[in-house]
Amino acid sequence: MLTLYYAPGACSRASHIALREAQADFELRLVDFASREQRGEAYAQVNPKGRVPALATDRGILTETPAILAYIAQQHPAAKLAPLDDPFEFARLQAFNSYLCSTVHVAHAHSRRGGRWADDPAAIAEMKRKAPEVMASCFQLIEDTMVAGPWVMGEPYSIADPYLFTITEWLPAHRIDVARHPKIHQHLNRMLERPAVRAALDAEAQ
Amino acid sequence: MLTLYYAPGACSRASHIALREAQADFELRLVDFASREQRGEAYAQVNPKGRVPALATDRGILTETPAILAYIAQQHPAAKLAPLDDPFEFARLQAFNSYLCSTVHVAHAHSRRGGRWADDPAAIAEMKRKAPEVMASCFQLIEDTMVAGPWVMGEPYSIADPYLFTITEWLPAHRIDVARHPKIHQHLNRMLERPAVRAALDAEAQ
Repeated sequence: MLTLYYAPGACSRASHIALREAQADFELRLVDFASREQRGEAYAQVNPKGRVPALATDRGILTETPAILAYIAQQHPAAKLAPLDDPFEFARLQAFNSYLCSTVHVAHAHSRRGGRWADDPAAIAEMKRKAPEVMASCFQLIEDTMVAGPWVMGEPYSIADPYLFTITEWLPAHRIDVARHPKIHQHLNRMLERPAVRAALDAEAQ
Repeated sequence: MLTLYYAPGACSRASHIALREAQADFELRLVDFASREQRGEAYAQVNPKGRVPALATDRGILTETPAILAYIAQQHPAAKLAPLDDPFEFARLQAFNSYLCSTVHVAHAHSRRGGRWADDPAAIAEMKRKAPEVMASCFQLIEDTMVAGPWVMGEPYSIADPYLFTITEWLPAHRIDVARHPKIHQHLNRMLERPAVRAALDAEAQ
C-alpha cells in the first residue's frame, strides 16, 4: 500500500492522477496547508523539506514530483506510463518533467511564495507582478517546442501529461487564458475526459 | 558520438563529469556566455530554452541535468552510476537530483539571474542579498538529511555525486564556508581526488 501526502490543487495532483492511471493500491493523506501542517514537526518526519507530494512506500518515503512519477511508471509497467525500455525517450520525458519542476513551477511560486527568495515586501510584490509574464513565456515555449500532441510525448499517454495538466490548471490564477495556446488547450480538454483525472479531481474536492 | 554543450563552472559540469566517469565517447562544445551565445539564434536550434547543458545524441538533443545524468547512467550500465534495477533506489536518486535542480540551483540563480523573476533593480538586489541565506538553508538540509556518506547514496558512487559537487563549488560565491557542513566538505574533497573530476576541471579551465 502506498500513501500519497497531498494538498488539493498542489503539484501533488500530478502524482495523484498517475497513481489512478496506474491502478495503484494507494490511499490519500491530506496535508492541511491552511494550518501550515506542512511546516509542523510531525510532517517533518515525512518530508523534512516541508512540501508535498510525498509518497510513503513499504521501503520508505519518496519526494519530488519527477521522481515519484517515474517510480509510479516503473512499478506499474502494465500501465505504460513511460518509455521504460528506451533511455533516449525516457530522458526526453524526464527533461519535460524537469522543466516543469525547476522552471515552470518555480515561476508560479514567485506569485505566491516570494518570501522564499526575498524578505522585503516590495520585492515580493514585484515578483508577484512579474510572475504572469514569466508563466506566459514558459507556456509559449511549451506550446511551440514541447507538446507533440495529442499527448506531451506524442501518441503515448505518459506521466508528463498529468504533470502538464496540473500546472496548466494554475494559469487562471495568472489571468492567462489557456486558449492562447491551442495545443495545451486541447491537452487540457482531453485530460478532463479521462476517468482517472475526473476521479482525482473529485477526491481532491472532498 | 555525444556532444555536450557546456559553460565552464555551470551546472553542465555535472553531466561533463558523469560522461567521463562513464568513459563515454563524447566531445565538448563551449557555449560562450560572455557573448550571450546561449541566447543566440544558432543555439536556439540546439536548446530553445537558452540554457546549458544540452547533450546532442544520434537520436536528437537532450536537456535538463537530471534527465541527462540518468541517460548517461542508463546508456553506460557498466559504469554503475545509478541503481538501474531498483525503482525505489532510482527514485531516491532522482529525488535528490530533482531537489538540486528545482530548489538549490534556483536559490543560487537568485543571486545572479534575478532578472528572470523581477524587473525592478531594487527587487533584484533584494534577491541577491537573501540568496546566501537560502543557499545555506538548502545545504544544511542536505547535510542533515540527504548525504548518506561516503557518497550521496551511501557506498555506491552515482550521478548524484557530480551534481552535488558542481553546486557545492558555488558556495564560495555566497561566502559560505563548506567546512560548516562536514559531510559535504568530505564529499567535496573525495570528489577532487577522482581522475574523472580532475580531467573535467582541467578541460573546463582550457
